Amino acid sequence: MDKPLVAVVGLGQMGGSLAAALTRRRLARVIGVTRREVTVRRARRMGIVEGACTDLGVVAGADVVVLATPVRTILRQIGETLPLLHPGAILTDVGSTKKEILDACRQWKPRVTVVGGHPMAGNEQAGLDGCDPDLFEGRPWVLIPAGAVRRGEASRLERLVRGVGARLVWMKDAAAHDLAVARISHLPYLVAYALTDQPESALRIAGNSFRDATRVALSDADMVADFLLTNRGPIRRAAREFGARMRRLLDRIARGDAAGLKRLIEQARLRKTDPTA
Amino acid sequence: MDKPLVAVVGLGQMGGSLAAALTRRRLARVIGVTRREVTVRRARRMGIVEGACTDLGVVAGADVVVLATPVRTILRQIGETLPLLHPGAILTDVGSTKKEILDACRQWKPRVTVVGGHPMAGNEQAGLDGCDPDLFEGRPWVLIPAGAVRRGEASRLERLVRGVGARLVWMKDAAAHDLAVARISHLPYLVAYALTDQPESALRIAGNSFRDATRVALSDADMVADFLLTNRGPIRRAAREFGARMRRLLDRIARGDAAGLKRLIEQARLRKTDPTA
Repeated sequence: MDKPLVAVVGLGQMGGSLAAALTRRRLARVIGVTRREVTVRRARRMGIVEGACTDLGVVAGADVVVLATPVRTILRQIGETLPLLHPGAILTDVGSTKKEILDACRQWKPRVTVVGGHPMAGNEQAGLDGCDPDLFEGRPWVLIPAGAVRRGEASRLERLVRGVGARLVWMKDAAAHDLAVARISHLPYLVAYALTDQPESALRIAGNSFRDATRVALSDADMVADFLLTNRGPIRRAAREFGARMRRLLDRIARGDAAGLKRLIEQARLRKTDPTA
Repeated sequence: MDKPLVAVVGLGQMGGSLAAALTRRRLARVIGVTRREVTVRRARRMGIVEGACTDLGVVAGADVVVLATPVRTILRQIGETLPLLHPGAILTDVGSTKKEILDACRQWKPRVTVVGGHPMAGNEQAGLDGCDPDLFEGRPWVLIPAGAVRRGEASRLERLVRGVGARLVWMKDAAAHDLAVARISHLPYLVAYALTDQPESALRIAGNSFRDATRVALSDADMVADFLLTNRGPIRRAAREFGARMRRLLDRIARGDAAGLKRLIEQARLRKTDPTA
């Protein structure tokens, strides 16, 4: 079987790692699209793409197009990309929120297959510096169809996602995805920002646990602002739930209720040890 | 110079690691005191102590006594230990809060040197399973004198703390320590518990960032409940500050204020990159 031609739009950590994983594992021929000439040259030099350019027009020839830019850029690129694609092509993305992206796709009444994607991977390193062909190894990768998806197109996409080592999770509902992500990803970002804001007198004695709890605060601001701003409702809900849980814990402490406090701590420990408990 | 005889009371992760570090680095002869016979035997077998027993009375012969039990057990053991110590001995501890401990020590009008201690080290592994002679390597270790400390006693303690690889930080004020710790340690624990409480639908797509942000939720419940319950005032204050910062972030998101949100994110990123900025 011929290797598919995959266009990866955006060569940041996510797009760069995907390009590297697809190329190194010989899963696809990869064309990179990026804003800056310097990134074009660097991606070529690194050997993570077959070719790269700054012109979005090259997606016309691709079998699979992966938008790997910040969410609000993806929203713009959907309209620029969809009309160019050949029938039988697949459009997907790696944005952290899915409802706004899939709604935008549907507005274009696409004649190609559109499947939203979200790999739960990445770390605080931005750009090609953070590029890692093993970034997706063992990580969940959510796929959500924008409409009907034929078996052939679904398998083509599944092969790529599983091929880069990810654990594929099909979901039907973009809103359910966005709420889940607000709870286990976007909320931790907000918490990290709020935790980090401490006086130097406190920070100088901070240990590993503080470093780990605030690690995501190092992530690229444009990327984070974009997914936060395209997920307002779910984030409001997740933050409200979180606030109620904080108040419950603080109440036990204020009342000196050792038994009640330990119960809440043990519940959290159990959930953490066995998430399905 | 003769090696000091150090009694480590409590052979959990902290006490066990200290015993191991002192023994392996030949900084002291170590006697372990623990509640359970099985731990006595295990510590001996591991070779992290010269001797071990379940009788707190053995501290009478020690040059340095380190209480390494949960904070509320330390509060009780202070009264059981101080009357036994010989003049010239040093009593210290590794509890996460310092004001209640040092206040309790002062009530006994001790004739020995009392210095509160707090190594900012440890991970989620409880007991001797988490024992690691390198646990303190490069980590801050705060020391706070309960009263006057003679140069000789101070150096003796400094030699041990630096000897196990820790970065020594002398502080004068237990209340200032407890507020700093509420901000950079106790608050992250509460946040981790509140974050962990998510439905399975969300947890099944959680990635590394969630795992790291909630790692401390695996810590021993007795230990955590003790330091939370002996630090109520500072925790209330740290939580109030944290809540205000969360609301500021959520407000920017709700209003779709991209520029304002990115400013807050960039500030956090800068503080995280360079804590002294």
